[in-house]
Amino acid sequence: MAREIAEQPAALARTLSSLRPERAALRKLAEDRRVVLFVARGSSDNAAVYGRYLLEVHAGRASGLAAPSVATHYHADLDLTDALVVSVSQSGETQEIVETQSWAAQRGARTVAVTNDGGSSLANAADVALVTPAGAELAVPATKSYTAQLAAMTILAGALAPEPTALDPVLDRVPGEVERLIETRAGVAEAAERLSSTAEALVSGRGIAFGTALEAALKLEETCLRPVRGLSYADLRHGPIAVVDADHVALLVSAADGPMVSGMTDLAHDLRRRGAAATIGIGGDSGFAGAVDVAVPGPDLPELVAPLGLIVPAQLIVEALARRLGLNPDAPRGLSKVTQTDPAA
Amino acid sequence: MAREIAEQPAALARTLSSLRPERAALRKLAEDRRVVLFVARGSSDNAAVYGRYLLEVHAGRASGLAAPSVATHYHADLDLTDALVVSVSQSGETQEIVETQSWAAQRGARTVAVTNDGGSSLANAADVALVTPAGAELAVPATKSYTAQLAAMTILAGALAPEPTALDPVLDRVPGEVERLIETRAGVAEAAERLSSTAEALVSGRGIAFGTALEAALKLEETCLRPVRGLSYADLRHGPIAVVDADHVALLVSAADGPMVSGMTDLAHDLRRRGAAATIGIGGDSGFAGAVDVAVPGPDLPELVAPLGLIVPAQLIVEALARRLGLNPDAPRGLSKVTQTDPAA
Repeated sequence: MAREIAEQPAALARTLSSLRPERAALRKLAEDRRVVLFVARGSSDNAAVYGRYLLEVHAGRASGLAAPSVATHYHADLDLTDALVVSVSQSGETQEIVETQSWAAQRGARTVAVTNDGGSSLANAADVALVTPAGAELAVPATKSYTAQLAAMTILAGALAPEPTALDPVLDRVPGEVERLIETRAGVAEAAERLSSTAEALVSGRGIAFGTALEAALKLEETCLRPVRGLSYADLRHGPIAVVDADHVALLVSAADGPMVSGMTDLAHDLRRRGAAATIGIGGDSGFAGAVDVAVPGPDLPELVAPLGLIVPAQLIVEALARRLGLNPDAPRGLSKVTQTDPAA
Repeated sequence: MAREIAEQPAALARTLSSLRPERAALRKLAEDRRVVLFVARGSSDNAAVYGRYLLEVHAGRASGLAAPSVATHYHADLDLTDALVVSVSQSGETQEIVETQSWAAQRGARTVAVTNDGGSSLANAADVALVTPAGAELAVPATKSYTAQLAAMTILAGALAPEPTALDPVLDRVPGEVERLIETRAGVAEAAERLSSTAEALVSGRGIAFGTALEAALKLEETCLRPVRGLSYADLRHGPIAVVDADHVALLVSAADGPMVSGMTDLAHDLRRRGAAATIGIGGDSGFAGAVDVAVPGPDLPELVAPLGLIVPAQLIVEALARRLGLNPDAPRGLSKVTQTDPAA
């Protein structure tokens, strides 16, 4: 896992340069489609959550997440002639994702596959395959394949936006920012130490960075075997915040700019008032860093592309915490690399 | 909370009979709309999750959940001229929901409000208001307003289905089934006792009953102050199942029929193999009941409408558990009835 975290700057640079030429094909494929639907599970689903916000906020295209069971278990007959369906799977072989893509195509959807394996079933069946050249991923917890999926989302959203190359200048800075975060590891050891002090953790972020919060929670859960919830601060405030007490460590994720920083900063103050054991903040601005107990610097990137860097300190924290807890971060208990969600028939 | 749980048979009967006449208006409003988008938060969001599956599976209409922050924080300019936007809020006054409905209408959406207050801002601004006559709800945890929202979802999905009255015969049996579950309380005390033995709980269900699992998790969290996650079994198997150990009690929710019973039964066996402290099953068939440690009977209703009854034993368990833990189920710590997700400006 540590090695694959370190490979991300190069994997991101390769993915961005290799997928940019696909923008014309994506734009053409989507030109008469009003809705973009993502099909994914696990870390890929968290990448899709980012894709969904980016499509709506940056490209102005209505977007959402499909429920695979509607295809695989209920065989619903939907009209998808207005939809671009984007299936996301590292292996390209998760059965329910392959099945759902095929179901969507039969109902009129145009299809895009985002996968790390160009020879996979998913890539072969799609109208356009966005193959991420992240290289073979051996650790069970996805790291470089996840950030490569995020890069693919920026290509897709760019392609559907009025100005497809608008994000290119900031995207060019992503590999360097990720490199810097991996080298400095600022705040990582202290954050892992705080998290090791309690079994109760929650992760929050919102909007463009919401997928990052979900992914950080999933990594903590899979790799460190902590029952962790990832929640938007809106959902957290709406009820679950009631459970926060001195047993809880909260990990908050925020871009350095954008409309969510102030709400995330208010949340940090509120969690402290409610007596949380500790608040750890990744990213944000100086006000946010001042409101948390442990401030972990994020990337110097604008909100729209910040998730490509924001997850990296979380990966480093998870890896350090797993080792601290005596766990093997490369092969968590009870999981395998190509995941299936239903027992084989 | 106990009184409002007990009021549900009458509230459901009133809601169904009062909303049936709205089907013609809903059908007309949606006739040229290809997509249904729900806008909601908290328990209302869990009702929307049921609505989304029901729309796709029963009515064959593509459906999804909108992200309110895309409207309230990013002010994205989406084309919603093909969308029917359904906003769900008990009070009809949650600011972000009211704002998102207004934003959607400005972008071409037709709007439906599902609310317990016919005089609310949400009801007043909608093209069609589905006002649930559940009566004033005083306890903070939503019970009768939630099942009334589920009843509104069956009316909406029915209206958009080829045969609008197809579900009526089974819906007529819902109040009686809910009454029976409240009177017999079968398995409720034992389930509450098992849950009181540990702080770690998770709730799982899938497909049509997935919203029920989310709502049961939210109720446990808000009312009993347990950090609980609600997960589809697909998401659970994809990674988080790794955390299950002898500290975990799992609450599994399943209809008595349909394509999810066998997967839920396999999950119960799997959780037992992984050494979960206990599995509590609500509903399901005899195979499912035999696979869990504590079998709590569900309603005798087909899967499509089972959620209207399946949540009731969960409400009874939560109420009993709160009292067992010395908590006040009517007014959980740190929450208020009309929820706002951002601090007032």
